[in-house]
Amino acid sequence: MTAGTLRLAELVEALGGELVGDGATPLQGLASLTSAGPDHIAFVTGAKHAAAMRACRAGALIVPPSLASEAAQQSALIVTTDPYLYYARLSQWWLARQRAQEPATRHPTAYVHPEAQLGEGVHLGAFAVIESGARVGAGSFIGAHTVIGAQAKVGDRCRLAAHVTVGERCELGARCIVHSGSVIGSDGFGFAPEQGRWVKIEQLGRVLIGDDVEIGANCTIDRGALDDTVIEEGVKLDNLVHIAHNVFVGAHTVMAGCAAVAGSTRIGKHCTLAGDAKVIGHLTLADGVHISACSVVTKSILKPGMYTGIFPLDEHSSWEKNAVTLRQLFKLRERVRALERPPEKT
Amino acid sequence: MTAGTLRLAELVEALGGELVGDGATPLQGLASLTSAGPDHIAFVTGAKHAAAMRACRAGALIVPPSLASEAAQQSALIVTTDPYLYYARLSQWWLARQRAQEPATRHPTAYVHPEAQLGEGVHLGAFAVIESGARVGAGSFIGAHTVIGAQAKVGDRCRLAAHVTVGERCELGARCIVHSGSVIGSDGFGFAPEQGRWVKIEQLGRVLIGDDVEIGANCTIDRGALDDTVIEEGVKLDNLVHIAHNVFVGAHTVMAGCAAVAGSTRIGKHCTLAGDAKVIGHLTLADGVHISACSVVTKSILKPGMYTGIFPLDEHSSWEKNAVTLRQLFKLRERVRALERPPEKT
Amino acid sequence: MTAGTLRLAELVEALGGELVGDGATPLQGLASLTSAGPDHIAFVTGAKHAAAMRACRAGALIVPPSLASEAAQQSALIVTTDPYLYYARLSQWWLARQRAQEPATRHPTAYVHPEAQLGEGVHLGAFAVIESGARVGAGSFIGAHTVIGAQAKVGDRCRLAAHVTVGERCELGARCIVHSGSVIGSDGFGFAPEQGRWVKIEQLGRVLIGDDVEIGANCTIDRGALDDTVIEEGVKLDNLVHIAHNVFVGAHTVMAGCAAVAGSTRIGKHCTLAGDAKVIGHLTLADGVHISACSVVTKSILKPGMYTGIFPLDEHSSWEKNAVTLRQLFKLRERVRALERPPEKT
Repeated sequence: MTAGTLRLAELVEALGGELVGDGATPLQGLASLTSAGPDHIAFVTGAKHAAAMRACRAGALIVPPSLASEAAQQSALIVTTDPYLYYARLSQWWLARQRAQEPATRHPTAYVHPEAQLGEGVHLGAFAVIESGARVGAGSFIGAHTVIGAQAKVGDRCRLAAHVTVGERCELGARCIVHSGSVIGSDGFGFAPEQGRWVKIEQLGRVLIGDDVEIGANCTIDRGALDDTVIEEGVKLDNLVHIAHNVFVGAHTVMAGCAAVAGSTRIGKHCTLAGDAKVIGHLTLADGVHISACSVVTKSILKPGMYTGIFPLDEHSSWEKNAVTLRQLFKLRERVRALERPPEKT
Repeated sequence: MTAGTLRLAELVEALGGELVGDGATPLQGLASLTSAGPDHIAFVTGAKHAAAMRACRAGALIVPPSLASEAAQQSALIVTTDPYLYYARLSQWWLARQRAQEPATRHPTAYVHPEAQLGEGVHLGAFAVIESGARVGAGSFIGAHTVIGAQAKVGDRCRLAAHVTVGERCELGARCIVHSGSVIGSDGFGFAPEQGRWVKIEQLGRVLIGDDVEIGANCTIDRGALDDTVIEEGVKLDNLVHIAHNVFVGAHTVMAGCAAVAGSTRIGKHCTLAGDAKVIGHLTLADGVHISACSVVTKSILKPGMYTGIFPLDEHSSWEKNAVTLRQLFKLRERVRALERPPEKT
Repeated sequence: MTAGTLRLAELVEALGGELVGDGATPLQGLASLTSAGPDHIAFVTGAKHAAAMRACRAGALIVPPSLASEAAQQSALIVTTDPYLYYARLSQWWLARQRAQEPATRHPTAYVHPEAQLGEGVHLGAFAVIESGARVGAGSFIGAHTVIGAQAKVGDRCRLAAHVTVGERCELGARCIVHSGSVIGSDGFGFAPEQGRWVKIEQLGRVLIGDDVEIGANCTIDRGALDDTVIEEGVKLDNLVHIAHNVFVGAHTVMAGCAAVAGSTRIGKHCTLAGDAKVIGHLTLADGVHISACSVVTKSILKPGMYTGIFPLDEHSSWEKNAVTLRQLFKLRERVRALERPPEKT
């Protein structure tokens, strides 16, 4: 990222931390320890990156107090108790500065229904569509080709990338981010069987999304059948995440790429689904439950903690032998049980 | 859902069932047992929801005969042998009434190639694209930004949401539903190896989809290499489902979210792939095969039934010990075998 | 595929191989052995398809030398040492002939920012968007509704289908193919925790994609946090593949449908991830590593070879018994160990 030159002292003024060394150090951008040059600022979270820090050519470093005296010998510093958090805030601050230079505009090709309502300073990309009765809050960014359906509501200062679909009547809170290709408000998957055929159950509920939710690219979040699908504030979803109808996701829960939650399941607050973790339908997960990558939850989990179920990877030939044995595992147990039986007295 | 007030008797007139109580009961919409108010109708499938039914404030209930006498004490009723199916039909009927109030229009920004053919009453959303030679059947709804490729065919009374892509020459039958972001007719994944590089095999087949098929959001259905990928009538696919080239999916088969079928596999009729179930390539699944969630099919299945292969979830520390042991399972069996050997006579 | 009639000799002239029989044989297209008719050419890779070959009605066959004398009795031939590779090249050649008849055009509804640069012969579909500072190389095809973000770069002779999103500053090499719905350059998934909330880390890196890369439908490739996400030349990704931020994918590696690679992982050259294979973050896979379908990689793999970790599918009732036992596997091993202990002398 390059966005004009800043002085190190400007960062400290905006974001705090202790300045050590030359506040006039000129900076062009943030960079990683390995790729930073003299006009970059990089960050070090702790002693395990000390060697990389020594090799780093950054003009300025964000460091914890424990590394300050050593780091001061090689560059100017911002000293802070949580360099990673500082880096997060700095990345936001710097990008916001850049974006401030791009004034919000309504692209002439965007289509806004006469009965839609746009707040002040809404940006509309090329071919964006705001349908009848939809409302977009002040300062929100609606990317090219993004569609906000009839009666849908997008809060203030949201950022929807290109090619997002928000279905009719669905609602997003303030400061939400949605990446390209995500679909909010597709129909839940509901059918009644009738003599070998499937009769569609129209999905009449909505998707309700709280403040500060981020949704990755190509996710799908289905509307509820009768009641609503609910995603509480602060939830973060990575790419290709699937949330089925009538799911409830508690505040500040995180789901990594390809995670999925089946219908009517209730996920607590502050949970983690690692990548590709799956939760089947009609379950309850307590607050603070963490599911490992690629693990499958088939029963409710009422106790916080970390849960895993991954078949261990092995060389194919070893796996094959173990897998064959696994299919006989129950019998193997029976055989062990037989061996354990005391020999009958004769 | 709110769509003007109806009288309970109107529902019975349209959809059948036995009316018990006041046919003039005014109804604003359908609701679940827990959220229904006096102007809603809710449904009860059986005795296990009787307690929720008693607590329900709905103005009218759809109940099976076994609950009719009890339910009649609290509200007006529609009595029917299959309340779930009745609810499905009612949801359709009610939504159709609403939609009838929105006349089909061709949005002025939609692009229709001069050589495309549109049936009567086709709705085109903003920026929809109908390419050369494409045909869209009477009464079909083409959402905003949806693209119907050259020579493609969409049957009568289909409903394609926003941001759908139908590739050139692909065909959908009548009354199909496709949700946002789905891609029908992307290239199958085919390459010939040549000295460590991959030479693309152009995918020259089509995707052929029967009547009454529903496809969820962000699905991908690849065109065949030479022959066609085929999805028979009545198939229902949930979100993020992947169907590879030359797959055949038999009529009325259902696949839940994130299911995937690799190339040239043949799935029978009336099968179920639960969420995230995967079937590898070049297999055959008989009619009536049901695969559990997150299970992987690596061999053909010629016998109907339910099949499962999920690593059981456990607390992480327990999983770790079991997983390590699993990698030695074959050896463990050898050890049991050794123990079973009768002691050599000495 | 039908594209006007060609003579068999024209194919041989263009693509080599030995012509046997009547070079004037008229051909309308390629077809599979089972569906080919007298005006089609089909291919046979080896003896295991000899029976199908005998039943085939194709007017011409592509065969290996070992089948030439037998095949010559039923049709005209192209004899070549690698019929599959020949078929790949033929499919390309034939489609290229067809496409040559469709001149590149800039659809009047496409939006090109005044500061974007388009090479010669660029095709722009309906409602395509080329943002400020973006460059599209000569002869590239940009499908309907595809968005090329600000400062992004698409090389020469690329083919981007409809509804593709290329994020700002991302770069694709020459001759890349991207299928519909794919998102290149969505934000990586990065947050710093702060008192139970997640603070976004802006993703400031890019996605850099080499020459001859193919990306399937509805894939997501995240931009790097500070450094770039890199996909080297010749990589082929199938549909619904997820590549997280700062991943490196070595040249000519292939990933089948639904594969995913978590953040900062480095995949070697000439690797294969079969369908739904997953690799967790911060790992290294050597060149020539092959991961079986639906297997999960949780540790770095430094030795080439084939690796697998799939729970074997079974009838549900058998699976249930084995799964229960699996959760006690560690204890079972302890029991076997106890049995192995020599009886204490008394």
